[in-house]
Amino acid sequence: MIVIAEKINASRSAVKAIIESRDTASLLELAKKQADAGANYIDVNVGTGTGTREDEMESMRWAVDALQKDLDTPLSIDSGDPAVLEAGLAMRDGRPSLINSTKGEEESLEEVMPLAGKYGFPVVALAMGEGGLPKTVEDRIGPCEKIVASSEKYGVPIENVFFDTLVLPVSTDVKQGLITLDAIRLVKEKFPGSKTVLGVSNVSYGLPGRKELNAAFLTMAIYAGLDAAIIDPTVPEMMGAVRRAEVLAGKDRHCRRYVRAFRNK
Amino acid sequence: MIVIAEKINASRSAVKAIIESRDTASLLELAKKQADAGANYIDVNVGTGTGTREDEMESMRWAVDALQKDLDTPLSIDSGDPAVLEAGLAMRDGRPSLINSTKGEEESLEEVMPLAGKYGFPVVALAMGEGGLPKTVEDRIGPCEKIVASSEKYGVPIENVFFDTLVLPVSTDVKQGLITLDAIRLVKEKFPGSKTVLGVSNVSYGLPGRKELNAAFLTMAIYAGLDAAIIDPTVPEMMGAVRRAEVLAGKDRHCRRYVRAFRNK
Repeated sequence: MIVIAEKINASRSAVKAIIESRDTASLLELAKKQADAGANYIDVNVGTGTGTREDEMESMRWAVDALQKDLDTPLSIDSGDPAVLEAGLAMRDGRPSLINSTKGEEESLEEVMPLAGKYGFPVVALAMGEGGLPKTVEDRIGPCEKIVASSEKYGVPIENVFFDTLVLPVSTDVKQGLITLDAIRLVKEKFPGSKTVLGVSNVSYGLPGRKELNAAFLTMAIYAGLDAAIIDPTVPEMMGAVRRAEVLAGKDRHCRRYVRAFRNK
Repeated sequence: MIVIAEKINASRSAVKAIIESRDTASLLELAKKQADAGANYIDVNVGTGTGTREDEMESMRWAVDALQKDLDTPLSIDSGDPAVLEAGLAMRDGRPSLINSTKGEEESLEEVMPLAGKYGFPVVALAMGEGGLPKTVEDRIGPCEKIVASSEKYGVPIENVFFDTLVLPVSTDVKQGLITLDAIRLVKEKFPGSKTVLGVSNVSYGLPGRKELNAAFLTMAIYAGLDAAIIDPTVPEMMGAVRRAEVLAGKDRHCRRYVRAFRNK
């Protein structure tokens, strides 16, 4: 399992403050804590929602530069704006990165997929198109086909495409958990070699006991074939769920990672 | 999810002592605790391994009689010996029961399946035959086919057949968890209307953190389509896993059972 650590996101007010004040020490601390907890990528989303595109590009450059001076963990460059993605990628100077994200829409694909081709990095692609958030498994497949066509056009190997099959709250529609999980299975079947990724926490929106619900959903998703998860690795329930699910789904040879994690916890 | 409570099992020394001393109060207390925790069936296994067949039949009659005087929760009459099963069923006087168990072997089927036909109760059937414990998904299907043929012969509706796809420890072969789960999916697909059941705790044998591993495996199994589990419902991790997995797998309309369980815990 590839763990993408979610905490450096400017939608959180503490992170917004760190970015606006260019607080390098706090940014690094947040990244290192997540790396120590087992993150394979540190996500970096600097969209505070208040500045211009230029401001966001500048924030991304600062954050990437600040992080990579002291941290070898790969970064996940996260923005809905291709210009901000490119600003971050250029600052990375070719060091291992994840591009987060594009989706099954012409405009986004035409701008983001060439970056994945040019840099040779994996790219997260949301299984949604012009129609907005998909409600069924089938609604997710059309956008995925567009994504695959675009990846072929720009020379991105299918192994570098991480489909996000999108998580909606079960509190508004109890079938949504199952739909997301079944979409993982179907995507893996229809596009052999492709990867899947989820940000799981949406599933528990509006319900009590969210940490445990998120961990249980991640457990199911790993059995369904999930390759990567966007989570907070400093929450013991989440990394515990990853290690346990890997053992149970046959992805941890001789149970070594599990036993080691258990000893160290 | 149908919860079959596992604690009244004479392989546990405390239970063996209760049975041998005919300690009605302790037996009832053990049953009531499990019923209060959410059990749909109370399993009753009186095989102490020390007496004769007659002794075991007599113990079963005593236990069933003692329990049903004060408890309305259905019982799961559990023995590998058809004579002991029948002794328990006769004492039940037609009250709701589960027959636990038969397997895909001529001799067992010829003795146990007629009981399921005669009493009209559901029956647990282990997905194993003469060859002993199965190692693959396919190894489990042959015995299931024998079981289905026998159920048809004795007029047992497929809805009353609970296939146990058998859990082996991942510590000795890391693929075994996946094999059991995939067997659940395949059995549900090949024998529409049939039910599935697991005793999950074997999966974690030889590993640390067993309670949490068992809960995670149950979570995956419920997503895979599991209908019933043989567990200890007084362990909060296990009933928590059931309630969470039901919500996430779309089996808890409007999330009501989950929210109620959360409030009461």
